[in-house]
Amino acid sequence: MSHPIIFDTDPGVDDAQAIAIALRHPEIDLLGLTTTYGNVDVETATHNALLLAELAGREVPVAQGAAAPLVKERHPPPAHIHGANGLGDIALPPVRGQADPRSAAQFIVDTLNARPGEVTLVAVGPVGNLAAALQLDPTIIEKVKRVVVMGGSIREGGNVTPVAEANMFNDPDAAARVLTAGWPLTLVGLDVTHRCVLTGEHMARIEAGQGALGKVLAGSYGFYRDFYREFLGIDGCCPHDSCALAWLLRPELFTTARGHLTVATAGDAEGQTIFAPEGRGFIEPRWSRTPLVEVCLGVDGEAVSDWIADTLA
Amino acid sequence: MSHPIIFDTDPGVDDAQAIAIALRHPEIDLLGLTTTYGNVDVETATHNALLLAELAGREVPVAQGAAAPLVKERHPPPAHIHGANGLGDIALPPVRGQADPRSAAQFIVDTLNARPGEVTLVAVGPVGNLAAALQLDPTIIEKVKRVVVMGGSIREGGNVTPVAEANMFNDPDAAARVLTAGWPLTLVGLDVTHRCVLTGEHMARIEAGQGALGKVLAGSYGFYRDFYREFLGIDGCCPHDSCALAWLLRPELFTTARGHLTVATAGDAEGQTIFAPEGRGFIEPRWSRTPLVEVCLGVDGEAVSDWIADTLA
Repeated sequence: MSHPIIFDTDPGVDDAQAIAIALRHPEIDLLGLTTTYGNVDVETATHNALLLAELAGREVPVAQGAAAPLVKERHPPPAHIHGANGLGDIALPPVRGQADPRSAAQFIVDTLNARPGEVTLVAVGPVGNLAAALQLDPTIIEKVKRVVVMGGSIREGGNVTPVAEANMFNDPDAAARVLTAGWPLTLVGLDVTHRCVLTGEHMARIEAGQGALGKVLAGSYGFYRDFYREFLGIDGCCPHDSCALAWLLRPELFTTARGHLTVATAGDAEGQTIFAPEGRGFIEPRWSRTPLVEVCLGVDGEAVSDWIADTLA
Repeated sequence: MSHPIIFDTDPGVDDAQAIAIALRHPEIDLLGLTTTYGNVDVETATHNALLLAELAGREVPVAQGAAAPLVKERHPPPAHIHGANGLGDIALPPVRGQADPRSAAQFIVDTLNARPGEVTLVAVGPVGNLAAALQLDPTIIEKVKRVVVMGGSIREGGNVTPVAEANMFNDPDAAARVLTAGWPLTLVGLDVTHRCVLTGEHMARIEAGQGALGKVLAGSYGFYRDFYREFLGIDGCCPHDSCALAWLLRPELFTTARGHLTVATAGDAEGQTIFAPEGRGFIEPRWSRTPLVEVCLGVDGEAVSDWIADTLA
């Protein structure tokens, strides 16, 4: 079975690896890449998306989207994690192609309307493009097959604040819209991505298996790994964005729960994904009123890391 | 070594057991009980505090305090958990004594000023009395030996909202004041109290060991246990409030961490205790600016439950 997907992304080192999986995996039909600011500014995201597709020898539409959050002011991109160029500051070959003339949101709307019920939307950056697509055409709620969002945290705590994950913190207003839209949605957050660690050994296999693309993946990974070593004391990196695709293709490796999400859009909990399990009563009903979604709570991290390396080896 | 303490409480079934420990344990010198609304209204809390001391054959000052939160509107007391009378709706003997004429806050201020550096303040309900005491006399920050608060949750999620524990949710504004006052403070929250389960066997030992007081503790426990069975599917109860005293006397049973607390006072995370570990960097410094405190993250739950039963057997 092949999964037609749109991959919404801010590449970014771990994004690059996930894009490589989306380009290479025989069960994924990558209909397009849509880009957003986040790990990098949106122009860099678009450049990197075009480059990665070209290195893989593929022609894939790349549609540029959000340059900034819906409401709040933008934080500068985290150049100490992904490098100023989003790919660990390694030297990159030139890009030949050009972006699609449509906005990311319009590309999403057009693609979902062209194939109702068939297309999965996988978003691994701040979700402003999805919010913008919902603004253009709310009927896509009924047309998307599933929305898979890498972001948020249920029990794991945050990575950019004590309670918020970076993608959700980067645009909490967009996240509030997207996670409560009422479309079939799975949240792949830090509760699982922090359980997966990609080692140097995994990366050596990927480098060997992916030619020119492998050189970029492995080169950028070195920079990313330095960040993990210095700030988190881990020898290896969490392949956050690839986990969203791992859930799509290998859901049996994950444990999930159904419930209601609320995104804090202001105050000290800004960007937190607050999860009320289905059927659980609280002192007030307000947390249990949003549409039901699925969240990932557990994972066989080693199996996911191996799946990533096997896919790209 | 004996610990002179003031015990601030809203009894409440688990409060009653903790009060019994405070009255009975040879290493605790109970200087007074101060009462607040919470599990019950404040008049009922005062009645029950007087009753429990009398059943133990002790004369202990009881000073009545907050009838309502500092800022928000009060929720009705949870009669389905503690009973309308706070002690599982069992028949109670009459009370002979009377409350101290001072407010709880004034009692706290007077007692801490009389014995600077000696007295530990243990609070197991909404912390409005502590906030009021800080308002009367901020110098108590330098005079209290330590403040131990049963409340909050770091990683465990909430019990009255998906992220907030009941005491903190009941008065988040008071909690924000008390948890960031800069006094030596230990938070004993759901991360540890949910690991401790008191069984019927434990309660049978307590009933046998405490005479008339034991009858009230065991009788009220039955009601509380029904709640745990029906709503949480546990056969047994979490002795939340006794855990604060267990930490005081047996700290070696707990694992703790130092860091900074922020209490969300509004929005969907209202009442959440947001914890920034000491030395951990986040995208903005705002979560790491409050004074350092200690929070409990782990516990040998079985040992604590046995300690409670051994103390009262």
